Amino acid sequence: MDQTLLDDESPRATDPLGDWRRTHTCCQLTGADDGAEVCLMGWVQFRRDHGGLIFVDLRDRAGLTQVVFSPDHAPEAHSRAHVVRSEYVLAVRGRVRRRPEGMTNPNMVTGEIEVVVSDWKLLNTSQTPPFAIEDRVDAGEALRLKYRYLDLRRPKLAQNFILRSKAAQSVRRYLESLDFLEIETPMLTLSTPEGARDFLVPSRVNQGRFFALPQSPQLFKQLLMVAGMERYFQIVKCFRDEDLRADRQPEFTQIDIEMSFVDEAQVMDMAEGMVRTLFRECLNRELPDPFPRMPYAEAIRDYGLDKPDLRFGLKLCDVSDIVRGCELRVFAKAELVKGLRVPGGESMTRKEIDELTEFVKIYGAQGLAWIKIRENEWQSPIAKFFSEDEKNALAQRLGLEVGDIVFFQAGGADMVNTALGWLRVELGERLGLIDESVFSPLWVTDFPLLEHDPEAKRYVAKHHPFTSPQDGHLELLKTDPANALARAYDLVLNGNEIGGGSIRSHTLDRQTAMFEALGIGAEEAEEKFGFLLGALRYGAPPHGGIAFGLDRLVMLMSGAKSIRDVIAFPKTQKATCLMTEAPGVVAAKQLRELGVKLRESAKETKED
Amino acid sequence: MDQTLLDDESPRATDPLGDWRRTHTCCQLTGADDGAEVCLMGWVQFRRDHGGLIFVDLRDRAGLTQVVFSPDHAPEAHSRAHVVRSEYVLAVRGRVRRRPEGMTNPNMVTGEIEVVVSDWKLLNTSQTPPFAIEDRVDAGEALRLKYRYLDLRRPKLAQNFILRSKAAQSVRRYLESLDFLEIETPMLTLSTPEGARDFLVPSRVNQGRFFALPQSPQLFKQLLMVAGMERYFQIVKCFRDEDLRADRQPEFTQIDIEMSFVDEAQVMDMAEGMVRTLFRECLNRELPDPFPRMPYAEAIRDYGLDKPDLRFGLKLCDVSDIVRGCELRVFAKAELVKGLRVPGGESMTRKEIDELTEFVKIYGAQGLAWIKIRENEWQSPIAKFFSEDEKNALAQRLGLEVGDIVFFQAGGADMVNTALGWLRVELGERLGLIDESVFSPLWVTDFPLLEHDPEAKRYVAKHHPFTSPQDGHLELLKTDPANALARAYDLVLNGNEIGGGSIRSHTLDRQTAMFEALGIGAEEAEEKFGFLLGALRYGAPPHGGIAFGLDRLVMLMSGAKSIRDVIAFPKTQKATCLMTEAPGVVAAKQLRELGVKLRESAKETKED
Repeated sequence: MDQTLLDDESPRATDPLGDWRRTHTCCQLTGADDGAEVCLMGWVQFRRDHGGLIFVDLRDRAGLTQVVFSPDHAPEAHSRAHVVRSEYVLAVRGRVRRRPEGMTNPNMVTGEIEVVVSDWKLLNTSQTPPFAIEDRVDAGEALRLKYRYLDLRRPKLAQNFILRSKAAQSVRRYLESLDFLEIETPMLTLSTPEGARDFLVPSRVNQGRFFALPQSPQLFKQLLMVAGMERYFQIVKCFRDEDLRADRQPEFTQIDIEMSFVDEAQVMDMAEGMVRTLFRECLNRELPDPFPRMPYAEAIRDYGLDKPDLRFGLKLCDVSDIVRGCELRVFAKAELVKGLRVPGGESMTRKEIDELTEFVKIYGAQGLAWIKIRENEWQSPIAKFFSEDEKNALAQRLGLEVGDIVFFQAGGADMVNTALGWLRVELGERLGLIDESVFSPLWVTDFPLLEHDPEAKRYVAKHHPFTSPQDGHLELLKTDPANALARAYDLVLNGNEIGGGSIRSHTLDRQTAMFEALGIGAEEAEEKFGFLLGALRYGAPPHGGIAFGLDRLVMLMSGAKSIRDVIAFPKTQKATCLMTEAPGVVAAKQLRELGVKLRESAKETKED
Repeated sequence: MDQTLLDDESPRATDPLGDWRRTHTCCQLTGADDGAEVCLMGWVQFRRDHGGLIFVDLRDRAGLTQVVFSPDHAPEAHSRAHVVRSEYVLAVRGRVRRRPEGMTNPNMVTGEIEVVVSDWKLLNTSQTPPFAIEDRVDAGEALRLKYRYLDLRRPKLAQNFILRSKAAQSVRRYLESLDFLEIETPMLTLSTPEGARDFLVPSRVNQGRFFALPQSPQLFKQLLMVAGMERYFQIVKCFRDEDLRADRQPEFTQIDIEMSFVDEAQVMDMAEGMVRTLFRECLNRELPDPFPRMPYAEAIRDYGLDKPDLRFGLKLCDVSDIVRGCELRVFAKAELVKGLRVPGGESMTRKEIDELTEFVKIYGAQGLAWIKIRENEWQSPIAKFFSEDEKNALAQRLGLEVGDIVFFQAGGADMVNTALGWLRVELGERLGLIDESVFSPLWVTDFPLLEHDPEAKRYVAKHHPFTSPQDGHLELLKTDPANALARAYDLVLNGNEIGGGSIRSHTLDRQTAMFEALGIGAEEAEEKFGFLLGALRYGAPPHGGIAFGLDRLVMLMSGAKSIRDVIAFPKTQKATCLMTEAPGVVAAKQLRELGVKLRESAKETKED
């Protein structure tokens, strides 16, 4: 342990505060307070000595105030101030005065004034931090996560948490005003084999059995509707033990909502109002009223993705029929061929095109075909495969103009849409087509109820198995499952899915039909979801809901680049906490009590 | 699976709602709405047929409204209504009319009116519930927990969740108005060997290592203070894997608060304001301002417990000095002898005294000595052991009067205080001394910093090891640890501890001294709490906080007898959920992925 702070020669913190009370924050005093006696408490952002005086920028959560230790005003206070270093914690008493002419700082809220110290206390010392506490930090993220309590002192990061707290209260106020009840659902619950991988919690009292941490409170919120609670919400931690892609966390926070006696329109209206209120109250921004809506099929057709970013154009264009007979075999025989015209993209370099080609390979594309439209020719490795008629048809369909580049993707429909959809987003960013100051919300509706899982060779629920089919589509489950549409809706913001929900199957026959379509037999359904089926037998009301990802929503609102910047103590992509070093090794006794032991393979990795 | 509801002859629910929109709740319409066209949706509480009409009490979350199906008004609607049974879900459209003279129901908010149905939809059917949905339920708790979604429909239980939601919002509004930030702390964190037993979560990515679910966010909230967040709160799930005594749950909810730059008085003032606001907003009750305060030593002296119920008297009285020389050896040699005088208790029967004797044995007492004060004699098995002088001294000290009974307990101080303290509470209840309409808050202050753990033969922290000693008491840790007092405070309501907190050790030297007093060496401290010690090196501000048990608080506010009545989906005392049957058996693959396996002993119980 570092003993230097215990040396008698080191400055010693005063404790307790005695009768010292903070009177103002460090972002409060202005010229109007000239002459006031105040008490501030905070951290030393910066100290400089000038002309016999000691100047300290004192920082608290709210901001900065300059305090001055002067040998003329308070010689004892001044003489003690020589020990002060960055990040020391001070309480200062003094008098506010206007700064001398020419010394004001217009970039600081308190830049008109300074506080001349009459007395002060050293509340704590600090070692030199491993990185400077300022927004322009150049320390690596690993170091910043290890010293998270220092990283969070940076004003930009601190602001994210002020915003997040404000956002949560705004949401709660809105929902409370609509008679929603906040009801807590269990964290220790049952593992359900559908969906993502569960985090498990061994039961000590019932050895051999396990709780699971909830992936969402889906079944509980439906049961609360059966219970007659009518309007439920919760801002709640959810858990998924998946390999973490960029910007996923093993625990995340959901604004979870469910309503009875409603259909899609009412849930969407309520949710829109919530998001509009949130942006108004927290960012002073007005979102469109109503939000635009787009069927899933249209989103896929025009944007390739079910979460289109509407802040810029670059729609995809289906040219399958035109190239059906062309000499380029990969085009002619493809399930789907789409083009993406980039106005003015003709100047793109070979290197840029190569980068984009690598980019689309992430999404399963083999390569990336392109044509540059020049005055007198189409410059392209593939232009030669098209007849004049085909060229004319392409030019017309795609609206090609001189100076454009057009990218093509051919193959299976899913791959083509996904690869071109993400290419569109990538181009939007690279070409600066996105107005970052705009918030563009969009409802995507009329989702397919099912999607085919090629691995399992069966249909699985696109949302979840409790989503209701649209009116008349229950029958399609048996005859034409691929075209059965769901009463589901997603809310997209700037190309990010921030929320999604559905009207649920509230009668036993609908839910049973859905399980059958998913290949879940009566016995299996009873085993896995018996308590839900039980509940549907006792007067479940029509109900539906929605859930929002709070982390992502606040990230978008704050302009942060990563959800780690809006989570106080985030995990790394290896699901560890660099500050506490969790997960940790536990005592053998703890495992024994739980009736579990480590496999040999796990014991080996333990020493890593 | 029960197929009866799928039979074509059964009534079929209509789906979706179409253009039907609820216009009112079932607790809204009065005589003033006479003639209004309305749409209600809810559950059939009760149906009766009378004079060719069908009457239904329709129930929603808000209340009940009588609806009438009349063959004259709407023959088609009436003829379809014969299928209606209890707990069916209906949407009805109709016109409000005043009930005929003499048919009004003054016990119902909507008792003046009824709704004459013009059209209706069957939203769902229901099997006959396993118990009636009414407040006077006689079904056993196990059955009610299995069908929790039905139990929650009972108005009395539903009201608890309306109150709980309101309480949570009241608390949040209050704290937000004082610039507190709601910040979420991790659920997947590090196991700390101090305190209660942790729930563990095996890490898949880091096999052999485990997360723990938090027993409280204590360290994280302190780190948030080091991070400069200044005012933090969270309403958060906490976890303890302990054997469940009555009214404990493995997961429970805490209102968790921490503040920087404050001392005890400021935390207590803030907390008092929160509780007063809560009771005013949710119950329309005014609590005393300020709350009374009592040092720990006084609470133990007068009430035997550190959470005295001040709604009634019956103070304990130390008579050790008087009986030091008496002929009753167990009194004469005891560390402590205390009496508890019960005015008018002389009429207690032998049976009652025997019951009380059994009661105190729960708290480690060997028996219960007593004296009945009669006109001319002390009737008692032990009266003969006292001299006249001793009797006079006892009579004077205890204020004995004819008609009293006085109980004695002699032995170790802890046992005497605990046994008599709980006996006092028991007598308060048995004798009807408690005014149940009163809310009596009390701060208990000046707690000992440490308590001796006879098993471990060392001192352990009475609150937790991060609690700061009182001013000047740091030195006592080495010389006289038993008399070192903590900067800790508990808030007691009607004899229940509802909150507790402390000012923390914010400097490294204080925290290190505390660990030393607890026998935790530098190396061990670094290993277990290294990240906290690290944080204390970088300018930790003075800080302290408090945490409230929300479950218990709402239980007391609602008058519920069990915290299970204020938790939507509670666990049994065997830590199981009777509705979902969690914890459950999981697939072998899930365990393999986590690098753990079951011990043989656990496998055997698996088949239970």
